[in-house]
Amino acid sequence: MTRKWIDVSVPVRTGMTHWPGDPGVRIKRWRDLESGDICTVSELKMGSHTGTHMDAPAHFIRAGRSIDRMDLDATIGPARVVRIRDPRCVRPEELAPVGIRRGDRILFKTANSSRCWKAEGFVKDFVYVSREAARFLARTGVRMVGVDYLSVGGYFRDGVETHRELLSRGVWIVEGLDLSKVRPGPYDLICLPLKILGGDGAPARAVVRPRGKKSEAI
Amino acid sequence: MTRKWIDVSVPVRTGMTHWPGDPGVRIKRWRDLESGDICTVSELKMGSHTGTHMDAPAHFIRAGRSIDRMDLDATIGPARVVRIRDPRCVRPEELAPVGIRRGDRILFKTANSSRCWKAEGFVKDFVYVSREAARFLARTGVRMVGVDYLSVGGYFRDGVETHRELLSRGVWIVEGLDLSKVRPGPYDLICLPLKILGGDGAPARAVVRPRGKKSEAI
Repeated sequence: MTRKWIDVSVPVRTGMTHWPGDPGVRIKRWRDLESGDICTVSELKMGSHTGTHMDAPAHFIRAGRSIDRMDLDATIGPARVVRIRDPRCVRPEELAPVGIRRGDRILFKTANSSRCWKAEGFVKDFVYVSREAARFLARTGVRMVGVDYLSVGGYFRDGVETHRELLSRGVWIVEGLDLSKVRPGPYDLICLPLKILGGDGAPARAVVRPRGKKSEAI
Repeated sequence: MTRKWIDVSVPVRTGMTHWPGDPGVRIKRWRDLESGDICTVSELKMGSHTGTHMDAPAHFIRAGRSIDRMDLDATIGPARVVRIRDPRCVRPEELAPVGIRRGDRILFKTANSSRCWKAEGFVKDFVYVSREAARFLARTGVRMVGVDYLSVGGYFRDGVETHRELLSRGVWIVEGLDLSKVRPGPYDLICLPLKILGGDGAPARAVVRPRGKKSEAI
């Protein structure tokens, strides 16, 4: 079994798909070796919830914790990639037999990973976490939930409700993962968001590594 | 000994100090719960070399490798924090007795960590890596070099030369670390830059954890 780190982040690029109504993404050369400058430097413009990113409680909860105040243990450590077969949303019924426990870090691999990132433009009918499943996860006391498209809540429903269920109970959210190269199972996870002071969320880089039965704590 | 992860990243905020001539940093609310919006979202504008960040070879080398093509092993794994006492720059003479080896990940803790981040505005006379020390590190074949202010090369000298010595030989560079809370010694390091397609560099988050003699590979 390979023990190499696998990148589960999507590339950040000009014009990339983002949540409708959020700021667009533009990466522009500020200096350029090709134009005779001494070095190449870029200017980055993007929303705080671009590509692979994290949501802080402050995203949906007034006076909620900001991203720079996240406990690093929330996103560094053992995690599980859980396959979701439901083509519409994550429901408590599919989670019940999975054996989710307090403190878990859970990444949901849905049909999104193979479908949404290849699509032209924003996919509205992506697989989301239902408010009922979010309540189940929050009450179980999971530490972190990761999803493989741009929102943990749906576009047509449960957008606000799912976020509030999780964020109001201190569950950190990773969105915009590409899990297409990753099978369900146990992993070591590292997800590090930019340390944006007072941030409602932040772009992040996320990597996983298959975890053997005898793996040490990360 | 604590085995908790220690954040060695500087916070990203509007108006923060950046390399002279680089794009300014502006974090602006795009939506705001406090204004009655359904959630809070921000727009981020910054240079690719803002705060704690990485330099890719493409920063100074034409057709050099871009940041999205970095091997993750460059910045995930055992590392050493090396104290530098020279008040002006890192010189080969101070490195010789340190026992630096091929494949090492080296973070230099200089006077910068206690001085530069507290200063108002940009500090020009920060401690940098001399071109001679850069050549020594590159020839030794280190994997990664990290420094505790905004550039590995100096403001008045060795700015271009030090970058080229390292980047032309495939040494990845982390700049803008705050090592004020970290003693010299062995650590586990994780530094993850944003995955900017074709990027000359990228803002990053970096964390370290003290490493005991019996520590497993990260």
